[in-house]
Amino acid sequence: MTINRDIVITEVALRDGSHAIGHQYTIEQVTAVAKALDEANVPYIEVAHGDGLGGSSQQYGVSLTDEMELIEAAVSVCKKAKIAVLLLPGIGTMKELRQAASIGAKMARIATHVTEADVAPQHINLAKELGMETVGFLMMSHMVPTKKLVEQAKLMEKYGADTVYVVDSAGAFLPHEVRERIEALRQALDVNIGFHGHNNLSLAMANSLAAIEAGATKIDGSVRCLGAGAGNTQTEVLVAVLERLGLKSGIDLYKMMDLAETIVAPILKTPQEITRNSLVLGYAGVYSSFLLHSQRAAERFNVDSRDILIELGKRKVIGGQEDMILDVAAQIAENPISVKK
Amino acid sequence: MTINRDIVITEVALRDGSHAIGHQYTIEQVTAVAKALDEANVPYIEVAHGDGLGGSSQQYGVSLTDEMELIEAAVSVCKKAKIAVLLLPGIGTMKELRQAASIGAKMARIATHVTEADVAPQHINLAKELGMETVGFLMMSHMVPTKKLVEQAKLMEKYGADTVYVVDSAGAFLPHEVRERIEALRQALDVNIGFHGHNNLSLAMANSLAAIEAGATKIDGSVRCLGAGAGNTQTEVLVAVLERLGLKSGIDLYKMMDLAETIVAPILKTPQEITRNSLVLGYAGVYSSFLLHSQRAAERFNVDSRDILIELGKRKVIGGQEDMILDVAAQIAENPISVKK
Repeated sequence: MTINRDIVITEVALRDGSHAIGHQYTIEQVTAVAKALDEANVPYIEVAHGDGLGGSSQQYGVSLTDEMELIEAAVSVCKKAKIAVLLLPGIGTMKELRQAASIGAKMARIATHVTEADVAPQHINLAKELGMETVGFLMMSHMVPTKKLVEQAKLMEKYGADTVYVVDSAGAFLPHEVRERIEALRQALDVNIGFHGHNNLSLAMANSLAAIEAGATKIDGSVRCLGAGAGNTQTEVLVAVLERLGLKSGIDLYKMMDLAETIVAPILKTPQEITRNSLVLGYAGVYSSFLLHSQRAAERFNVDSRDILIELGKRKVIGGQEDMILDVAAQIAENPISVKK
Repeated sequence: MTINRDIVITEVALRDGSHAIGHQYTIEQVTAVAKALDEANVPYIEVAHGDGLGGSSQQYGVSLTDEMELIEAAVSVCKKAKIAVLLLPGIGTMKELRQAASIGAKMARIATHVTEADVAPQHINLAKELGMETVGFLMMSHMVPTKKLVEQAKLMEKYGADTVYVVDSAGAFLPHEVRERIEALRQALDVNIGFHGHNNLSLAMANSLAAIEAGATKIDGSVRCLGAGAGNTQTEVLVAVLERLGLKSGIDLYKMMDLAETIVAPILKTPQEITRNSLVLGYAGVYSSFLLHSQRAAERFNVDSRDILIELGKRKVIGGQEDMILDVAAQIAENPISVKK
């Protein structure tokens, strides 16, 4: 029986949530969560290292359990749900994508920085050859104007992505900014449009609704907010809100509430909330990896780490440019014009 | 020096947050929080039992510390911030209002069920005689159509309220519903309009922004979400979001972040999050006091407590009608047409 869905939700707790628990997922946890999500009629469940396939490393955090074993475990218990994997070209490779497909992953989400869609075509092509659904996943979308975002999204479409996602990696978007971007994409693209939000500014739900109003039909959520930073749009709450709006997710609300409470909540050592660190990352709109570097630089130069992060956000510094952090700290120390009001 | 504020925030953690900690505030906690809020330039700080002045009782929960002592403590450390009190006629009396004014409270928020503004005039009059700013606080505003809400708000204005608040006690509103109501009030009233949200549907921030867009200038927040249910609009996050929108709250963002992290977070035994119970209350749009009754009735009649709560919400059952809960449970047991999809 096909389930009628106005909005198609991808549950990301078993990938994005990996960040929140230091990549310590066990087979038992992934099996229990995936089985319950499948029974609640969740259509897509993403499973991978937090930084995508191949992310397990000293740099990004070593997984307790090999992600391929986690994917196999999830595949083995899902009767209807499809398993999705995330792949950041440069971190993951064709080899991991082939392996994931061979053990049953059905959707490949190819993630690039919002200005670097051009690294994605080979991986999208391979995913299509492997018979997978494909997603172009434009990370840190808030860092570019709408026009640039549309240009990059059109590249993803041209490469063959079935869906293009606007990804608010830092939880920095305001609802009107999301609305403007999704509307522009809706005009420019023929493929599906998705939105992936983070809750650093307590706006993940608001931004997801703005995206839906503007034409997005694919939304990511993490049950119990089990995602990086302040977590994502809380899936079981999203299901409830969509029902209130008369939109069908096809997901069983009571089962989602129950699995959130009894299976997922115990996985978290402390409940997800908006802390000072996650708030400042969302407010500054920068990579979470900048946090620790900025705190160290702040100590060295006797400045406030938040001033550094906000300045990095203004300068649109991206991952790989961490050397800028010391420069910015030194400049603030020399010329302490506070960036705050 | 007068601080320029586009949006005037009232911090409610020391009143609404009392629910979240079982009314166990100590003098030391209230002193520390109020002092830090004052130093961060928060203009109004509400202090009282969670159910308002006089709420300490077996029925509503016995306060560890007499609320008048807490109010005195807060008044004594605030150089600029004004202390507000909440009063629900029927729970609190004129006597407590006089006492609160005599020890330095400067704002009286007179709270009634959204259909019962007519119990407020005496208390508003007294507050004005005592030289206090006055607020008409319309609780459970989601339970009535906009027209009825406007009628009741106009009563509050007629009685002399300086501000009328739309209060989303159950965290049940969706943003478009808030927008419609605030717009209607903006047309109908000359006084200030306020919004008090709860986060049960992860929409407290979205609803606060919708209220502001529609003309509200007074917004309640609770630092670190320290409020009843899933907590309120998170104050330090609201301050950050307003800055991003170019709106002045007059509050120091860094100081708010710091006090949230170092002074308020340690007060919470477990961080605030959206649990199954708070979600179902927001989804059903019912009083939190119905939860335990419904769970007991559900056990007795072998039905799902959520079906009871949702049916109570549909029937717009209000506080004092708890006897309806058993009736509804019995009816669901006899005729188990699930209300869920």
